[in-house]
Order: sequence, then structure tokens, then C-alpha cells
Amino acid sequence: MDSKTRNIKLTIEYDGSRFYGFQKQPRVRSIQSELEKAFKRLFGRKIKISSASGRTDSGVHALGQVVNFKVNHAMPVRSMQKALNALLPEDAAVRKAEEVPADFHARFSAKSKCYEYRIWNEFSRSPLLRNQSWHVREPLDIEEMKKAARHLTGKHDFKSVCTHNGLNLDSGKSTVRTIRDIKIFRKGSLISIRVTADGFLYRMVRNIVGLLAETGRKKLTPDAVKKILAARDRRHSVMGAPPQGLFLKSVTY
Amino acid sequence: MDSKTRNIKLTIEYDGSRFYGFQKQPRVRSIQSELEKAFKRLFGRKIKISSASGRTDSGVHALGQVVNFKVNHAMPVRSMQKALNALLPEDAAVRKAEEVPADFHARFSAKSKCYEYRIWNEFSRSPLLRNQSWHVREPLDIEEMKKAARHLTGKHDFKSVCTHNGLNLDSGKSTVRTIRDIKIFRKGSLISIRVTADGFLYRMVRNIVGLLAETGRKKLTPDAVKKILAARDRRHSVMGAPPQGLFLKSVTY
Repeated sequence: MDSKTRNIKLTIEYDGSRFYGFQKQPRVRSIQSELEKAFKRLFGRKIKISSASGRTDSGVHALGQVVNFKVNHAMPVRSMQKALNALLPEDAAVRKAEEVPADFHARFSAKSKCYEYRIWNEFSRSPLLRNQSWHVREPLDIEEMKKAARHLTGKHDFKSVCTHNGLNLDSGKSTVRTIRDIKIFRKGSLISIRVTADGFLYRMVRNIVGLLAETGRKKLTPDAVKKILAARDRRHSVMGAPPQGLFLKSVTY
Repeated sequence: MDSKTRNIKLTIEYDGSRFYGFQKQPRVRSIQSELEKAFKRLFGRKIKISSASGRTDSGVHALGQVVNFKVNHAMPVRSMQKALNALLPEDAAVRKAEEVPADFHARFSAKSKCYEYRIWNEFSRSPLLRNQSWHVREPLDIEEMKKAARHLTGKHDFKSVCTHNGLNLDSGKSTVRTIRDIKIFRKGSLISIRVTADGFLYRMVRNIVGLLAETGRKKLTPDAVKKILAARDRRHSVMGAPPQGLFLKSVTY
């Protein structure tokens, strides 16, 4: 790469409802393919995303997904942001565009990520939040959920809350992660669960939310959650929460 | 009506995006027609809504619209709610069902109503809130907006913020209303404006929000808003805000 190559960091919001996840795949709509289409139209040539902070599954949203890409063009970042937002479909937008040092890598440079999961906890479903929350009809006891969350916070082997996704987990790949913080709060009928960690395993947040919801429903005790985690076996756990309640909230570098 | 006729009050939430407003009209999708279709399927005969707290325009949402209807059936209200929610489309739901005295009338019994208007105030548009907010790119000064709101609070002739809608406003129909309270607050990029009044004229909230946004943008002073109101002429005012940011929040009886 020559000296004029710039490294651009984009912070992206998207409504995941009509995307087949972040990653490009043949014949389906993905965030990556929409972004790369917009790059092509803006810069007149093929530019690939160098990296993304993490992939999100089909139906999962982002308030602050981070990607970076390399470009050899003098356009100011503010103009880039404006132009990309004019080119991107209505369900994706660039909230911030910044020029960063050449060694910035959206995935490897990340220090921590924060996911938020939203539960609509009322007898009736919510038409306005139907694509942005999980409807749990039975009243959830958030004090019990907070107790269970305390057992999950810290450095642990999170194998029990990692869905396989075709990987051989006994291949030596570590399933140890550090959850820095789990915040649970209620505003009216909406319960938000914010999980901040140095890294996440596949489906980890949705599987944790599944456990916390069972605790809130009093089907599991906080102690049972502790034991499920200690078992280090996904088969000991419960169903994960559905994708539409999950938001990649922010990434810290 | 015989002695077994019950008067039922329903509190309804809907995502107005795909509805042509509340009121039944030929050949289009409305809240009223979807509700009456659900009544027909549930009770096996045609039942009309007796009244609604107010009509909402196409694209306008509700968190707590109130309607009432008369029915001659012993079904418990909780079962009614559950059944109606199974019959209604995903963008409408009954949040509460209550049996009320025979003289309860969703419109005439209302003491006050509260509307909330949401503005997404950031350089970039919001994919997640695109159908539930108005995107205003220029930074809004909410302190200025609050000052202008003070001039609108109280008992006034609101003719300047009433869109005609084919009515002859000189027919003697009063355009005097009392705004009890206007609350404006910001949470991140989202500005919420809550207007509580004893009654509202056609397009009144959207026209008020149009004025407040112009004040926030510093195109109008709070004093200019006071003068526009005093002119009692819609032609002296500014464009109203678009429908998708408006929510009928609650009705007090």
C-alpha cells in the first residue's frame, strides 16, 4: 500500500430485521454486501471491508457496529459519511466516520464490546417493539436475574453458553472470556440487559439471556445458573433467546 | 340494550406505519377495521366500536389509544384480551381490557390526552427508529424549545396550529383548548416532546412540533412563536412535523 492509503473506521447502526446477518453470503442481503456496494458506487472501484468488530446473526441489530476499510482517496470523512448514508438502504446507516492509524483493526484492536438485549415483559405483545424485543409474557423478577448475573460476571469458561456453530470446540480453541459487567434494568414493561465483555463466543449473549429469563421466571435459581456454567457443557443449559431482542451496542478500543 | 350488555374499554397499542390511520375507510387498512374484524371472529357477529378517544392519521402510532364497544357476552375481559391479540395483526394489540360502566364513552369521558413526539436529532439518520421518529439533522437547542413551549401552555385559541382538513373553521366551532403541560427532554440523540391537553385540534401536535423545531434550530425566537399563536391564523405558522414521530401516549378519564 502506498503512502496515500487511508484507514477509515465506520460506526454503523442497522435494523437487522431484513438482513441475513452482517457477513456477506451468496444471494442474500447482508450488511457487508450493502456496505461494499455503497463503497463501489462512491469510490468507483471494488473496496472490501478489512474487518468488523464481530459478526451479527440474522435479525440481530446494531447501534454501534464498527468496521474499517482502506481507501486511497482524499475525500473528507464527513463527506464520506454523508455520501454513504445517501447510498445505503434505509435500514443501515453510518453514525460516525473517522480516519484512524494504519494499524487499527476493527476486530483485533477492540478492548471490549457491549451488547444489549431487550425483553418486552407484559401480558400483551408490543406492536411497536415487535422487531426489537423478545416478548416474555410471565412477570420476570429482575432481582433474581441480577443474582444469577453475578455468577456469570468475571473470568469463566463460558462453554455452557456457547452454541457450536459447526466448530469443534475441543480443538483447543479457548472458551474462556471475561464478562466485565452485566447491567439489568426495567423501564415500564421493557427490561434491558447489558453485557460488557472482552470478547464473546457464538450465541453467548442470547444463551445467557435465556438463562437469565429462566431465573426471572423462577424456573431456575441463581445457584442453578452457577452450576450450569461450571458444567462447561451446552447440553446442561436452556434455550437461547431469539435474535430480534439483541443489539450490538458499542465497541471500546 | 338489555341488562346483559357490557361496555368494554380497550387500551390499544399500534405501529401506525402500515395503517391508513385509525378510522375505517373503504379499501384501506385501518385500526378500526382490523379491530371490528377481530370482534366479528371472536363474538361471531358484527360489533362496531362505540367510540375512540380520538382518530390518529396515517403513519401515527399509539401506545395507549382507548376505544369502547358494547357486547352481550359473558367472556372474562382477560380472555377477551388474549383472544383479540391472537386475532389482531402483528402491528396492533390490546394492552388492557376492562369492563366499564354503561355511560363510559372513550371520547366524551376523556379528561385529557397525552401525545408524545420523537425527534432523532443527529447528523446521521437512524435505521432503527426510522419509522418512529422525525430525523432533524441540525442540532436543536432544547432550552429555546422549552421557552417557546411556555408560550403555548395554558388556555389559548390554537387556530394557528390547526390544519383545516376541509372544515369551515369560521362555522363557530371553537379552536380554544387548554394545554396543561409540554415536557421536552433529550436522551442521547432522541428528543421527546410530550404534550398534555384537554383536547386537540386537527394536526395540532404536529404543527406545534414544527414550531418548536424551528425554535430549536434558531429560525424562530420563542417570542415569534408567541406572536404566531396570537395571530390565530394557520398561514402565519410553519410546516407541521411528519406523522411517523407521533404517538398517542395515554388518555386520562
